[in-house]
Amino acid sequence: MIWGGIEGGGSKFVCAVGTGHHDIREEVRFPTTTPEETFRKACHFFDRMIAKYGSLKGLGIGSFGPVDLNPKSPKYGFITSTPKLAWRGVEFKGFFERRYGIDVSFDTDVNAAALAEGSWGAAKGLKNYVYLTIGTGVGGGGVVGGRLIHGLVHPEMGHVIIRRDKEKDPFEGACPFHKDCLEGMAAGPAIEKRWGIPGEDLSEDHEAWDLEADYIAQGLLPLLYVLSPHKIILGGGVMDQETLFPKVRKRFIHYLAGYIEHPAVKEGIDDYIVPPALGKKAGILGAFALAMGSYEL
Amino acid sequence: MIWGGIEGGGSKFVCAVGTGHHDIREEVRFPTTTPEETFRKACHFFDRMIAKYGSLKGLGIGSFGPVDLNPKSPKYGFITSTPKLAWRGVEFKGFFERRYGIDVSFDTDVNAAALAEGSWGAAKGLKNYVYLTIGTGVGGGGVVGGRLIHGLVHPEMGHVIIRRDKEKDPFEGACPFHKDCLEGMAAGPAIEKRWGIPGEDLSEDHEAWDLEADYIAQGLLPLLYVLSPHKIILGGGVMDQETLFPKVRKRFIHYLAGYIEHPAVKEGIDDYIVPPALGKKAGILGAFALAMGSYEL
Repeated sequence: MIWGGIEGGGSKFVCAVGTGHHDIREEVRFPTTTPEETFRKACHFFDRMIAKYGSLKGLGIGSFGPVDLNPKSPKYGFITSTPKLAWRGVEFKGFFERRYGIDVSFDTDVNAAALAEGSWGAAKGLKNYVYLTIGTGVGGGGVVGGRLIHGLVHPEMGHVIIRRDKEKDPFEGACPFHKDCLEGMAAGPAIEKRWGIPGEDLSEDHEAWDLEADYIAQGLLPLLYVLSPHKIILGGGVMDQETLFPKVRKRFIHYLAGYIEHPAVKEGIDDYIVPPALGKKAGILGAFALAMGSYEL
Repeated sequence: MIWGGIEGGGSKFVCAVGTGHHDIREEVRFPTTTPEETFRKACHFFDRMIAKYGSLKGLGIGSFGPVDLNPKSPKYGFITSTPKLAWRGVEFKGFFERRYGIDVSFDTDVNAAALAEGSWGAAKGLKNYVYLTIGTGVGGGGVVGGRLIHGLVHPEMGHVIIRRDKEKDPFEGACPFHKDCLEGMAAGPAIEKRWGIPGEDLSEDHEAWDLEADYIAQGLLPLLYVLSPHKIILGGGVMDQETLFPKVRKRFIHYLAGYIEHPAVKEGIDDYIVPPALGKKAGILGAFALAMGSYEL
């Protein structure tokens, strides 16, 4: 018997099966189009896998959001108020439960990735940490006391306030709700709009990266002040620019201004703000972690 | 047998004994002076209480911080890098454990107050909420998945970034570390320095309160975005100005800009941002909650 996982992102879906995190047998990826077409492709993959490997032991889904994670809600496991109109109000968890007659473990894509990093990656053994992804958007998942953060809805860490020096950076921000929140200033689309070039085409020594690091560092401050995590993991396409890490760490320490007396945020900073140990696999392995019930670490 | 509690604040200590939260038998309060004198007064009280009521079933301490809450640390239960020099490096938990031969449950004053509100107050039955106090300083405690937030250190919610319009408010901020963070702009000392009058002497319709509400609302944003709490409880001396509540709620909704789709932060806002149901008793009842092992809600 095998486990199944779906990394349901806003732009692409990854479906995989395997016997464990170290043994992904097969994987397929396709663009996120309409829910009907996307789900059909996912089912096509899992149908084939079940024919080949036998029935699924469990299925985990890490979904783009916002999603309803309240087990008492009639909309539990649905995608809710996404700007992707075709996906608004779509039942995600229930669809696959009925289709395969199994319980599906469902959470946000970032909570899933956080769970994978805690189970097998950079946060292994930690009870309190955060995973923040900076890509097309900015989103975060986190674990407190060994449990994923759920509440009224789920974390929306990308929308925290940051400060912008309007003279240094006249770009007004790309968030449709808040303009110059963290996501509005630091996600991929903001970089491209500000500089007229996508981030991946900006040279390593472009001034964009100092500004970017400054905004990201500001965005990490509330994570430290509110959650006091043992580690902050930064993933997502923007963080592929690896020169960002030392810059972010430096600005983060600058903004703390000596306030938190702990070696982790001083001499230990290189091991405090880190890339995901699972790299690009964090998302799909997160779906596996959900399926395998690593839910409580 | 009775429970004992110590609310160890930076300016005053409250010690109490009782059979439960609804039955505080005796209580004493005195200013926080040197650790020696302050602990002596506390012991004097508990010695008398034990002579009268019998031995303590348990003792809980909610302490001003920062404190070391890592059970594996040699400094577990100590006060750490406080600006109150006489208290720096003082062993708090261990002192009372040795003195009374019992296990002492120890946490921050704000985590204790949060626990009390979750056990018997405004957050009863909730697994995810925050208690923020705005007084001489700004500090917060919180519960996620039914557990108090602990991590690298403990939350320091008062130091989150807010935005200041320098033309509207030229006051540079009173935080010795960050100047114009939330605490630096919105705690009692900031109000007094900005207006030249202590907050309690400012009239209800003074312009100070609109500004104050704006800063507090900004400070609540990261709490929502990072923790997604079911409720935000605002205590502390500054919040005694009750006209602040409607103003804070209004600015909070303004800053969310429709982003979080949940009735709690729209039509339910009056029940979302609330005063502590236990009022001024939240602190000492928090110490009781710790003693009584309500630690996991």
